Amino acid sequence: MVDFLRAGLDVTVYCVDVYSFLVNYVHPMEVVAHRCEYYRLLVSAVLQSLGVQLSQVKFVSESSLAYSKDFVVDMQKLCALMTQQDARSTCDEVATTKMLSPMLCCIHQSLSEEYLAMDIQQRLHLMNPMVAGLDGLKMSSSKPPDTKIEFLDDPDTVWRKVHNASCPPQQIIENGVMELLKHVLIPVSEMRLEQKRGQTGLNTDEAKSGSQRPFVTDSAPDDAVFSVSRQRGMDPLHFASYMELERAYISGVVEPEPLKEAVASAFNGLIAPIRRIYQESKEWQEVDRAAYPEE
Amino acid sequence: MVDFLRAGLDVTVYCVDVYSFLVNYVHPMEVVAHRCEYYRLLVSAVLQSLGVQLSQVKFVSESSLAYSKDFVVDMQKLCALMTQQDARSTCDEVATTKMLSPMLCCIHQSLSEEYLAMDIQQRLHLMNPMVAGLDGLKMSSSKPPDTKIEFLDDPDTVWRKVHNASCPPQQIIENGVMELLKHVLIPVSEMRLEQKRGQTGLNTDEAKSGSQRPFVTDSAPDDAVFSVSRQRGMDPLHFASYMELERAYISGVVEPEPLKEAVASAFNGLIAPIRRIYQESKEWQEVDRAAYPEE
Repeated sequence: MVDFLRAGLDVTVYCVDVYSFLVNYVHPMEVVAHRCEYYRLLVSAVLQSLGVQLSQVKFVSESSLAYSKDFVVDMQKLCALMTQQDARSTCDEVATTKMLSPMLCCIHQSLSEEYLAMDIQQRLHLMNPMVAGLDGLKMSSSKPPDTKIEFLDDPDTVWRKVHNASCPPQQIIENGVMELLKHVLIPVSEMRLEQKRGQTGLNTDEAKSGSQRPFVTDSAPDDAVFSVSRQRGMDPLHFASYMELERAYISGVVEPEPLKEAVASAFNGLIAPIRRIYQESKEWQEVDRAAYPEE
Repeated sequence: MVDFLRAGLDVTVYCVDVYSFLVNYVHPMEVVAHRCEYYRLLVSAVLQSLGVQLSQVKFVSESSLAYSKDFVVDMQKLCALMTQQDARSTCDEVATTKMLSPMLCCIHQSLSEEYLAMDIQQRLHLMNPMVAGLDGLKMSSSKPPDTKIEFLDDPDTVWRKVHNASCPPQQIIENGVMELLKHVLIPVSEMRLEQKRGQTGLNTDEAKSGSQRPFVTDSAPDDAVFSVSRQRGMDPLHFASYMELERAYISGVVEPEPLKEAVASAFNGLIAPIRRIYQESKEWQEVDRAAYPEE
C-alpha cells in the first residue's frame, strides 16, 4: 500500500464488512461492524507507523455502498444471470460450507470493485505481514498464533515468537525468520533509507512524516539496510540488501541466534508505534472489546 | 378479496415484482416493473367491476419495501441462517432451475409478509378466476390459452372458449363449465343479490357502488342467482343456489348447450366493465404494450 502511495496512486482501503458477514455467517452483523472499525483503526496505525499521512488514504466500508438500491438491484440481476453451480464453485474457493450466504460473496466482490471504480486490487493480509509463517511454511489463519506476529503483540511475545521460529542454519528453505526479513523488514528498511535520502517517490506528503531510521546500528555505513550484532567485542555485520544477507546466512557467517535477536529487535521497533497508538486510543480499545468480546 | 372487504378487513394488494424477477429471471427487471403496473391496473378494474371502491384497497409493490437497508440486512441475515439445501428445496416447489436467483425467493416471500405486517395471506390467481380449467382439469399457466377465460377477452372469444369447454351431460366431474359456475359466476351472483337487498356486510362503502344485477332473466324470482334459457317458447329455468343447479344438471333437466349459452352470456356481462376500463385507459394500454412487448 505504501509502495502504491509512493508511486503516486490513489489508495482506498476497502473494508468488506458485508462480504465478511456473508462468507463467515457465524458472528452477528453487529460484531462484524465492530471488526470493520477495528481494522480501520489498525490499518490507520500501521500506515502511520510507516510514515503515511492518513489524509492520503481513503477508507470505505462495503456497507456504505452495498445498501444503495442500485447495488441491490445489480446484485439481483447478477443472481438472475448466475447458475447455482457457478456460485457454489466460486464460494468453495473461499469457504467449504452448506450455508446459503457464501454463495452471494462472489457477486458482492465483483460489484464492490465496480462500485468503487477500482483499477487495481491489492490484497493485504493485515494480520500476517509475511508471506510464510514463522514456521517457514505457508501461512494460514487456522495455524497456531505462534506462527505469526500480530501488530499488537507486546515485546516479550515478539521475542518468544521469533525465538521459537523455524530458522535452520545456512538454509533459507522453510526458514520463517529469513522470510520475515525478505518480505517485511528489509523492504521497510529500504523505504526508510530512501526517505532518509529524501527520495520520497511521487508522493510528496511522505516528506512531512517524521521518517524513521533503517534497522541498522549507529556505526552502519550509509547504504546499510540491516545490521546483525555479534558476540561482545565483535563488530556488527551490515548488509545493503536482502540478497547480501541471504548469501551471508547460507555461508554460515550469520548464525541463527544473532539473526533472531536482530529480527525481534527490528520487529519490535517496527510495531512499537502501532502499540502506542492503541494504548493512547480509548476509542480503539473499546472497539476491540466490542469486536472480540470473547477474548 | 371482495369477501374480505365485506367482512371488514383491511385489504392490501401486494405486487411481488422483485420476487417475480428472481423466480423467473428471464424477463428484464424493467419489463417486470411494467407487468407489476399492468396487474395493478387489471386488479383495480376487476375490483371496480365487482363494486369495490378503489379507496378501500391499498396497493403495495415489493420493490417499494425490498430496497430499504433494513430489508436487505434481514435478507442477508436469513441467507446466513439458511442452508443451500433448504433454499434449493423451497425453490424447487416453485421453479425447477439451475439459476441462483430463485434460491432467494423464499426469503423474499417471508420478509415481505413481515414488512407488510400481514395477518392473512390470500393467494389470488388473477388470470385464472376458476379453480379448474375449462377442460375441467387442474389449471396451470402452461396450459393452452383456450382452457381459461382472460379478463380482457372479447365477447366472441368468450363464446368460443365456453363453447369448446368440457361439459359432459349430467356429469359434474371434469366439467369446466360447472366449475366456472360453482367458483366464479354463482358466488358473484350471490353477492350481487345481497347487495340488491342492501346486505353490504361490514363494508359500508359497498353501498356507494352501483350494484349490478345477478345473472338472472327479468322474470326470475327474487331469490334466483342463475337463470338458464331454453328453446323458444319454453320458460327459463331459475336456480337459487349452485347446489340446486347442480342437481338439475345431473338429472338432465339442464343440458350442456343452453347452460353454455347462459354461462358465456353471464361471463361477458361480468368482464364487460373491465374491458371498458381498458379501452378507456390510454395509460393501461401503454403499460400493456411495455409489459408484453412480444405480443
